[in-house]
Amino acid sequence: MKTIEQNFAVPFRYGVYFTEDLFSVQNTLFTEVLQKDGATKPRKLLFVIDSGVANAHPELPEQIHAFAATHADTFELAADVLILPGGEEVKNDPEHLQMVLSAINKYGVCRHSYLVAIGGGAVLDLAGFAAAIAHRGIRHIRIPTTVLSQNDSGVGVKNSMNAFGKKNFLGTFAPPFAVINDSNFLLTLEDRDWRAGISEAVKVALIKDISFYQSIKEDAARLAARDMEAMQRLIYRCAELHVEHIGGLDPFELGSSRPLDFGHWSAHKLEQLSQYSLRHGEAVAIGIALDVVYSRLSGMITEAEQDDVLALLQELGFSLYAPELAQREANGQLAVVQGLREFREHLGGELTIMLLRHLGQGEEVHHIDEALVQEAISLLQKMHQPQPLAQV
Amino acid sequence: MKTIEQNFAVPFRYGVYFTEDLFSVQNTLFTEVLQKDGATKPRKLLFVIDSGVANAHPELPEQIHAFAATHADTFELAADVLILPGGEEVKNDPEHLQMVLSAINKYGVCRHSYLVAIGGGAVLDLAGFAAAIAHRGIRHIRIPTTVLSQNDSGVGVKNSMNAFGKKNFLGTFAPPFAVINDSNFLLTLEDRDWRAGISEAVKVALIKDISFYQSIKEDAARLAARDMEAMQRLIYRCAELHVEHIGGLDPFELGSSRPLDFGHWSAHKLEQLSQYSLRHGEAVAIGIALDVVYSRLSGMITEAEQDDVLALLQELGFSLYAPELAQREANGQLAVVQGLREFREHLGGELTIMLLRHLGQGEEVHHIDEALVQEAISLLQKMHQPQPLAQV
Repeated sequence: MKTIEQNFAVPFRYGVYFTEDLFSVQNTLFTEVLQKDGATKPRKLLFVIDSGVANAHPELPEQIHAFAATHADTFELAADVLILPGGEEVKNDPEHLQMVLSAINKYGVCRHSYLVAIGGGAVLDLAGFAAAIAHRGIRHIRIPTTVLSQNDSGVGVKNSMNAFGKKNFLGTFAPPFAVINDSNFLLTLEDRDWRAGISEAVKVALIKDISFYQSIKEDAARLAARDMEAMQRLIYRCAELHVEHIGGLDPFELGSSRPLDFGHWSAHKLEQLSQYSLRHGEAVAIGIALDVVYSRLSGMITEAEQDDVLALLQELGFSLYAPELAQREANGQLAVVQGLREFREHLGGELTIMLLRHLGQGEEVHHIDEALVQEAISLLQKMHQPQPLAQV
Repeated sequence: MKTIEQNFAVPFRYGVYFTEDLFSVQNTLFTEVLQKDGATKPRKLLFVIDSGVANAHPELPEQIHAFAATHADTFELAADVLILPGGEEVKNDPEHLQMVLSAINKYGVCRHSYLVAIGGGAVLDLAGFAAAIAHRGIRHIRIPTTVLSQNDSGVGVKNSMNAFGKKNFLGTFAPPFAVINDSNFLLTLEDRDWRAGISEAVKVALIKDISFYQSIKEDAARLAARDMEAMQRLIYRCAELHVEHIGGLDPFELGSSRPLDFGHWSAHKLEQLSQYSLRHGEAVAIGIALDVVYSRLSGMITEAEQDDVLALLQELGFSLYAPELAQREANGQLAVVQGLREFREHLGGELTIMLLRHLGQGEEVHHIDEALVQEAISLLQKMHQPQPLAQV
């Protein structure tokens, strides 16, 4: 009997919008975005809000209710806003997923309704996962509130939760209906969170765009001093590079290559080893430092290039080292090297790690030398804790 | 600030293969299918088998181990085969999902490894869901073992599990790597399962292909008598129409239309009301009968057309009625009509129900008249339980 061949392509399209004070009465962006669905009746929306955002913006739920009342012809709230704990912890406990799914069920949120999530990367990951698997996918609008989620995780197509002690063990690829970046949310970030997201911009600049790297250097002091214009420039260009990359060859990562994961193979493990006391962006900064030193040790970049990146990370306020970097497993192996195996397993296929050939140009390798990793870690440790003079 | 526009299409391609005795040593299909991934090293495979299949084919796990040993250059088994209870019940208990995910984690099944599921539609749905959400999607090969899964659910792009008492509340759209239909599995089916799958073929013939409908009529006696050649003809054409339809306008069902759900709005509810003692295919046969009578009552088809379909269903051995069809909710409303609301909610958007304009030609409507539904049910009930002559 003949084989039946299935062959189709599914088109996806969404916008990443930039605004300020999204739910103020005179801001028309939100309703304009909704109207793109062409529906003739008011849509049903369920809002999920990160507890960190709700605490920093106690007026937000009330503001959303007032905004909805003003725009009753465009949408209605399915229920009161749902508050989810912010931070990576929300992705560890299946109860939070159950809570969102249960609300989707209880309030009749259908495949043409919307789950709108406002928060940092972790809450967006979890809410996005719920939206992706309920009714085989309900519409999802992301409103990222941190630098990291506005320039990186929130503008992409992935969602996730943690399981079996592994970050992002569960998840899908599910493009959002829209992403809306509201810079007002950045005003209330802790310094750590303001800074943490900058590392993803350094990352993408290093592997893809030398002129973006130069502009981050020029803005470094302003960024460290929380200058909003400098931050908006950084977020826009970083999000743009991220969106371009995803829309490129392999949006759903069916191959072995994951170039945007420069600096990430160790970062994921560091986060886990620190029990998520390290922010993702902080771990990425350390991961970048490690991969930059490793690239130099393996002769791919010069020492001057290495030092340039390390100096920039430090000027931005990042630590280049955490004790977890030197942590060893019971078998004596470096825990981050164990993380390399988990990274390959999560991704599948051949080990493919992005390193640097030049600043602004990544290059993939398929082997990591454990002795060189150890050497790189020792160097970073020394820079972090200079030997007292007497002992030199 | 400018909006960033994301815009891409993700291509999907898979084959639906037909064979006999897939894991016999001389059958090369399975390894040929695997080799399409172009990998240079042996792949890792985790097998999940429906307990119904394992009971009917007690030699199967051993046969798979022997087959794997013979083809060690092409693939290796990640672990011993995993047995999952067959039937809809497997989709109700999250423990079964957890069991598959846990094995994926424990045995290092990565995104370039394979979860191979052998079983009826329910086990394929559950295993497919696990494959879709582990590591954001590992490769998945489906080996459907029932008529229903070989000609319909198993060749498509959906997976699912039940939650909140609702069928398929959870799930994703995730095209398989391949589907392999082995007719040997049909030999050991119970008569009920042999028959049940035929209703999906009648369904797709009625809405899309009058000549397929005629050929089912010609084969009806042979099908009822378990003639394998007639069944293979039916499965091939039904699968082909199903695959063509999915590859058409809206593979991931982003719109409101779901033409293949002819006969299904009531069927889903009937299954649930019967606590899944009705097979899906049996419920669909009743659902088709209901929609055919409703189409006639609303003047869309003639009485002769209606009778032709009802006679065919009966010749194939289907009941056209189940007591659940007349069941009422506490508020007096017909439970199937309540099911209509759940159906709309699951799908989202405007109510869109496929009825018949002619045999072989469906037509969508956006309103269902409850009084006509009641009349159709009464008619089916009468045909099912003819009044004793004395009372006529």
